[in-house]
Amino acid sequence: MSTAAIVIIGNEILSAKIADENGPWLTRELRALGVEVRRIETVPDEIPLIVDALHRAKSQAKWAFTSGGIGPTHDDVTIAAVAQAFGRKVVPERRILGMLEAHYGDRLNAARRRLADVPEGAHIDWHEGSWFPVISLEGVAVLPGPPLLFKEGFGRIRDRYRSAPLFGRAVYLALGEGEIAEHLDAAVAKHPQVPIGSYPRFDPGADYRVKITFDGRAEADVTAALAFVRALRHGLTERGHVLRPFA
Amino acid sequence: MSTAAIVIIGNEILSAKIADENGPWLTRELRALGVEVRRIETVPDEIPLIVDALHRAKSQAKWAFTSGGIGPTHDDVTIAAVAQAFGRKVVPERRILGMLEAHYGDRLNAARRRLADVPEGAHIDWHEGSWFPVISLEGVAVLPGPPLLFKEGFGRIRDRYRSAPLFGRAVYLALGEGEIAEHLDAAVAKHPQVPIGSYPRFDPGADYRVKITFDGRAEADVTAALAFVRALRHGLTERGHVLRPFA
Repeated sequence: MSTAAIVIIGNEILSAKIADENGPWLTRELRALGVEVRRIETVPDEIPLIVDALHRAKSQAKWAFTSGGIGPTHDDVTIAAVAQAFGRKVVPERRILGMLEAHYGDRLNAARRRLADVPEGAHIDWHEGSWFPVISLEGVAVLPGPPLLFKEGFGRIRDRYRSAPLFGRAVYLALGEGEIAEHLDAAVAKHPQVPIGSYPRFDPGADYRVKITFDGRAEADVTAALAFVRALRHGLTERGHVLRPFA
Repeated sequence: MSTAAIVIIGNEILSAKIADENGPWLTRELRALGVEVRRIETVPDEIPLIVDALHRAKSQAKWAFTSGGIGPTHDDVTIAAVAQAFGRKVVPERRILGMLEAHYGDRLNAARRRLADVPEGAHIDWHEGSWFPVISLEGVAVLPGPPLLFKEGFGRIRDRYRSAPLFGRAVYLALGEGEIAEHLDAAVAKHPQVPIGSYPRFDPGADYRVKITFDGRAEADVTAALAFVRALRHGLTERGHVLRPFA
């Protein structure tokens, strides 16, 4: 089962300076790759809290991703946290250090040297001319916070995650949740392998009252669960027509 | 110290059906009220994972908020999770049940009766004509997932959270992070009570290279830390001018 957890490292998000774009973007990418996202956690730039989030991520999912906290300044602690989470030392990676030396020459100060630091034994995806290495260790991929770099970094490694596709279908009903809850309970009991979601709308402009979603790895199961609910609706009140049968 | 944690309950977010709006919105609201958000966690509609997130939220912050998972259908498990997290029974709340009976009459089925369920001993903020109760227990406020209702619900209780203001300032530099990291280290050492953030920009349209932020409860401390960094810049290269001194 291909599952993932996302750890967003960002005082700037928790202090409302910016809204996180990387979590929602990566969630969509992973979904398209067939990877089920099990949790998204935003934590401060504090090593103990990042380590705790990484342990939880890896205990609940096959893959984990971090966003942010890599760079040369005092608030960039993600590399140290990933190393600590897996009991590794932080060591300079020779090839990255060589590229930094070639690029900066005399201007390669202590801060910039930190850009070559990796957890010992980490896998590096880098190429000349790129801004940063993508570091992977024990199924955790370390990505930078700025969305432009986050996307570029994930692009280098995305084929690693491609999995069996996830199927999703939806029906949109003019009925309220209270009128269909029992039918959904029956569908959940009959199709336990298909997570079923029920999402009401309350805003005045909505052209439906509830969206019912069906998800799964097996397309036939998803289709069968949806057909089961559609069949049940004949027993509902006449307001129970399907406004849009498939999304 | 007024701190908060946000728990977003939502398979629909983890499966990329929708992007969460409530977490970023509430983070901004809490910041404006002087409440420091310590974590935001998105978890599936699964009681054990919600209970775990609530325990973590309450161990790391004074206040906690949940978004989503309240309603009459099978996937609405937040009330049960909050009750379980604090060892309470789930019981029907008499006033809510009375209002549901008055509204639905004969159509008050088992599913709709669930709308009156609360953890035993919970505080209820409700008023006639509203769509849902806001349930609070042990510093946890339970809010609905649809953004329109989430905002309305928070509006009922927001004055509860007003605290001493948080101050924030920023400078925008034309220097890269590698050139200022040592100065920031000095500032962090001299002003430990002021969290300092360093946020580089890499997109071609940016009119600065790094934004340095200063946060704190005491305005004088924030101003002093910023002045310290501004003074240091005189020792930097001439590219180190401040593009926009205050944000």
